[in-house]
Amino acid sequence: MGSVGADGGALAGVLVTHLPDVRYLCGFTGSNAAVGVTRRAVRLFTDGRYTGQAAAEVGGGNSGAKVQIVPSAPAVAALQWLAAQVADGEDAAVAFDPNHTSVAELERLKAALPGKLRRKLLVALEAPLVEALRWLKDEDELAIMAEAAALGCDLFNHMLGFIRPALTEAAVAAELEFQARVRGAEGMSFESIVASGSRSALPHGRATGARLARRGFLTLDFGVILKGYCSDMTRTVCLGRPSAREREAYEAVLAAQEAAVAAVIAGAECGAVDEAARGILRGAGMAEAFSHSTGHGVGIEIHEAPRIGAGQKTKLAPGMVITIEPGAYFAGEFGVRIEDMVAVTRTGGQVLTPSPKALIEL
Amino acid sequence: MGSVGADGGALAGVLVTHLPDVRYLCGFTGSNAAVGVTRRAVRLFTDGRYTGQAAAEVGGGNSGAKVQIVPSAPAVAALQWLAAQVADGEDAAVAFDPNHTSVAELERLKAALPGKLRRKLLVALEAPLVEALRWLKDEDELAIMAEAAALGCDLFNHMLGFIRPALTEAAVAAELEFQARVRGAEGMSFESIVASGSRSALPHGRATGARLARRGFLTLDFGVILKGYCSDMTRTVCLGRPSAREREAYEAVLAAQEAAVAAVIAGAECGAVDEAARGILRGAGMAEAFSHSTGHGVGIEIHEAPRIGAGQKTKLAPGMVITIEPGAYFAGEFGVRIEDMVAVTRTGGQVLTPSPKALIEL
Repeated sequence: MGSVGADGGALAGVLVTHLPDVRYLCGFTGSNAAVGVTRRAVRLFTDGRYTGQAAAEVGGGNSGAKVQIVPSAPAVAALQWLAAQVADGEDAAVAFDPNHTSVAELERLKAALPGKLRRKLLVALEAPLVEALRWLKDEDELAIMAEAAALGCDLFNHMLGFIRPALTEAAVAAELEFQARVRGAEGMSFESIVASGSRSALPHGRATGARLARRGFLTLDFGVILKGYCSDMTRTVCLGRPSAREREAYEAVLAAQEAAVAAVIAGAECGAVDEAARGILRGAGMAEAFSHSTGHGVGIEIHEAPRIGAGQKTKLAPGMVITIEPGAYFAGEFGVRIEDMVAVTRTGGQVLTPSPKALIEL
Repeated sequence: MGSVGADGGALAGVLVTHLPDVRYLCGFTGSNAAVGVTRRAVRLFTDGRYTGQAAAEVGGGNSGAKVQIVPSAPAVAALQWLAAQVADGEDAAVAFDPNHTSVAELERLKAALPGKLRRKLLVALEAPLVEALRWLKDEDELAIMAEAAALGCDLFNHMLGFIRPALTEAAVAAELEFQARVRGAEGMSFESIVASGSRSALPHGRATGARLARRGFLTLDFGVILKGYCSDMTRTVCLGRPSAREREAYEAVLAAQEAAVAAVIAGAECGAVDEAARGILRGAGMAEAFSHSTGHGVGIEIHEAPRIGAGQKTKLAPGMVITIEPGAYFAGEFGVRIEDMVAVTRTGGQVLTPSPKALIEL
């Protein structure tokens, strides 16, 4: 399988099948769709369940996309349409996204092409195309993401008045998600993490039926979806008084988090931002307790590029929105994580989640 | 790329990367994992965020799986472990799942193998392996799914007392999802559909900020996740009195739905079950208004095989759990859909969602 540019041939069009990319290109939010993009046209393919929705979402947008309802696989229909745009004898290819096309799907796509086109028409994109556009948010997107992040802060503030011992983690999650909906969220951007007591040592401790510990840390890591964009934030609060060790861990994580936020600026390497946090936790003797990366890009998807991890050479660029979320976890005892969403600008990082970070005792 | 059996070579092991398959095999619910399976061993690979969770979920299970925490991609680590199980000079291959391995991921996997193994070690599974096991639920799974379905019915019953004009669709979804959490659901199995008035003509009308129409249909299509398994049900109710056309459409969809449920039995072709519903709507002059398939398998994932669609030759087997959900949609006017979850048995279909289906006026 060739890849774009490998043989110097021209690109006639791009087959877009990753649904967040589809949404980005033309506004369509259905669950079964593909988009064909050429220099002259953008066309959305979806199935009969979405006739009305596609007309409403795409017809009203400014993408200029046309909608075509098809009886079978949208990706196959889109590829066949793209192939038909290549003039007879023209030496041009259609690119697909190898990161979001399964091996089996590629076989189905090839099988749907006439034999003479099968060998040379389809090429793999060498680098993400639509996703790379998505990583850099424009002003409208940044405004939506700031709104989503602010909704997250409102929710955290509400939860401070709601949380009390004897509630279950699930009841906390239920209230959080109910309030999110009532305040306009389309949904949550991932399964809410509500981890109390020794469960706070699980970085991904989803809400369970366990009752909140009477004393100890409680980690809330959650996000909302607003107008199609995800928010993501984490705060760790303490029920009752923290022990000296808990306070020490909290202060170290907070210092690490603030150092990484301060390191965010266009041009900085992601690895350097990670190291800003990691170095502080290392200095506090908590290197091993920080068992994950410092953060990740966020947007239409909850996890996007870049990864803010050790040794990552990718440079931050204006318009990226990333999370900064170091933590320290002590199995069987407790854990702490503090997370902000930060927009990258030429002059530094703009924190979108200004909820208080000093240790709150409830 | 060869596929299993194509060259008569033996299979040394299977690389499992699809997360629902991972969960099925060893109980692990984290977001980044792969499993290697050989005749002698099952090993889970995941990252440091999940050290505690993997020990708790997998160590306590009866899969016999060992857990290995790895610093980089779990799938690569699992493949390298599998490759190491193949004795020197042995003519055996490791199978991967082409439906859930991207073209780019396959390249990364190949690149992680020593050159001499790269060409012949990795082969594509010809047919789903773990998924095919998942399609047939055992007694324990059926009991969980019946429980999840019953929770859905409880929620629907609760919502009948909650729904009133002037509420927004989002407020209805918020209450539904809050009650689901409070009653023990881990989450919703998909974005809840709450579609009122003319929005009921959208088969996938997700809850919006729109207020419920004072009069007309309201479609609720939702599911919960309980102990890792999804439920799925739909009811359409009427606010106020239905018009003659609305009642006619409702009765036709109900007759179609009941006919399809009655057609469910081990050995029946999926296409025949679809036709049981489709024929009735065709007879009622609503063939075009029924713009989707009759149903789908459900389990750890909300959409599993088989597809209950026109012309599908797949035969129902005991232990399958499917949805039966015909609908009729009239753009700009109204829509109706009625959906049950049905377990396939040798003697017929066992409805897991016995909420009333006669038209309810609220």
